[in-house]
Amino acid sequence: MNRFNTYLVNGSFDQAISPIDRGFAYGDGIFRTMLMRNSLPDHWPFHYQKLVADCAAIGIVCPSAELLISDLQQLFAIDEIAVAKIVITRGEGARGYAPPAVTTPMRVVIKSPMPQYSVNHIVNGVNLHVCDIRLAHQPKLAGIKHLNRLENVMARMEWHDEHIFDGLLLDQLGNVIECTMSNVFVRFGDTLITPDLSLCGVAGITRQHILGLADVLGLSMVVSHLTLEALLKADEVVICNSLYGAFQVSQIGEVIMSKQHLAKTIRSALKL
Amino acid sequence: MNRFNTYLVNGSFDQAISPIDRGFAYGDGIFRTMLMRNSLPDHWPFHYQKLVADCAAIGIVCPSAELLISDLQQLFAIDEIAVAKIVITRGEGARGYAPPAVTTPMRVVIKSPMPQYSVNHIVNGVNLHVCDIRLAHQPKLAGIKHLNRLENVMARMEWHDEHIFDGLLLDQLGNVIECTMSNVFVRFGDTLITPDLSLCGVAGITRQHILGLADVLGLSMVVSHLTLEALLKADEVVICNSLYGAFQVSQIGEVIMSKQHLAKTIRSALKL
Repeated sequence: MNRFNTYLVNGSFDQAISPIDRGFAYGDGIFRTMLMRNSLPDHWPFHYQKLVADCAAIGIVCPSAELLISDLQQLFAIDEIAVAKIVITRGEGARGYAPPAVTTPMRVVIKSPMPQYSVNHIVNGVNLHVCDIRLAHQPKLAGIKHLNRLENVMARMEWHDEHIFDGLLLDQLGNVIECTMSNVFVRFGDTLITPDLSLCGVAGITRQHILGLADVLGLSMVVSHLTLEALLKADEVVICNSLYGAFQVSQIGEVIMSKQHLAKTIRSALKL
Repeated sequence: MNRFNTYLVNGSFDQAISPIDRGFAYGDGIFRTMLMRNSLPDHWPFHYQKLVADCAAIGIVCPSAELLISDLQQLFAIDEIAVAKIVITRGEGARGYAPPAVTTPMRVVIKSPMPQYSVNHIVNGVNLHVCDIRLAHQPKLAGIKHLNRLENVMARMEWHDEHIFDGLLLDQLGNVIECTMSNVFVRFGDTLITPDLSLCGVAGITRQHILGLADVLGLSMVVSHLTLEALLKADEVVICNSLYGAFQVSQIGEVIMSKQHLAKTIRSALKL
């Protein structure tokens, strides 16, 4: 472990990314962002399972868990609470979209400081901007946390107001899909709905985790399509990701949501 | 000029890509591929204009033409016929989709050998595979040659038959858009149609060049929607890009196209 280094490329402190790495050339790879505690990512089995699945979806063989854990332990001190990003690409290749017959996946682990979430976000909830850009439908890439994230970048460039925590993204049909860095849950009575991500969006592991909490929360879990109009009539809206866990949504555009506490209950259930 | 080097990062032979470059992290950048002759890209004014326009479309300030030409002249010998790829990214940034308040664009110039096109492709035309993956509609990114190219990668992974030159890509509605590395022109009588790229696809500069050749070719130019069914009934189909210029399409999937010579006429008109 070296406190002065912030990244490892293929397990080395001395490497950088080759300009012919396909992750750089085409976004031909996947990534995850995780909360590190005690030199281990929270919910590591979920994260590793998702790394393997996302790699497989685009035909990359994911490096072993042992290798990635070894990288993480080189980079993060045992007493450090910080953010780890793991990027896995298809590796280097000559010019052209066809991958080489034999590819060697490339891995990068990057350390970033843990964001300082305001107490206000935790106690009173967060504001969402409704993004103008609409997510495109691509069933062959939907759900995957791949490196083609220009839609998220364009969405995030839509606001500069620091009181807005995240941007709500709809698809081309007007269905709510996710936020730029969060998944979304919407409660109507005893039912908790999260948007269907079979055509676009990223299926995060905190979303997956919450979908398993039906008994704990006493709510029926439903994955379905949901319009913005329907969402605005919900009893409450919660957003989630691997870093902050879950936040109550207090305002969406100009619409004030009634004060509720599902996010707090979910944070407890997630042990965050 | 150094014959042993194959790339320059920000004008330097000694740099690589930072793992926190947003081109690597999110595909937050654009690129072009060009044919180099006499240390200059063919049709450079078209290429530079497109670099500037694509950068502007995602909010990046394109480096000056002088800087890029200086990079190219460091990398390519005067007597060398080769391929130049220019990549421009938004530069480095901390974790998160929001770009930093001040960004410094990063540029990479990469040299690759000129592909050896077979005489058969030039004389008899090329075969196209009809891709299974359909292009997603994203009007905010359509036409731009950005670094989010996983659709092209997935499309190119669909075939291994070396007799197939390129893959024809349709959109989610079944309209013909382009090929993985080429644009498409379709002749019906005196009319030359190229697909509308306002919802998806990359608008290449050879396509733009050919659209200006109406008088030379004696054809009316039309940009419109076009189904695969309609295309297969065309008098002839031509594909184009900046490296090979134009090729006649002799076969699409199982369908044999009648032998024609528009590609040859276009190549002459493009002076290739």
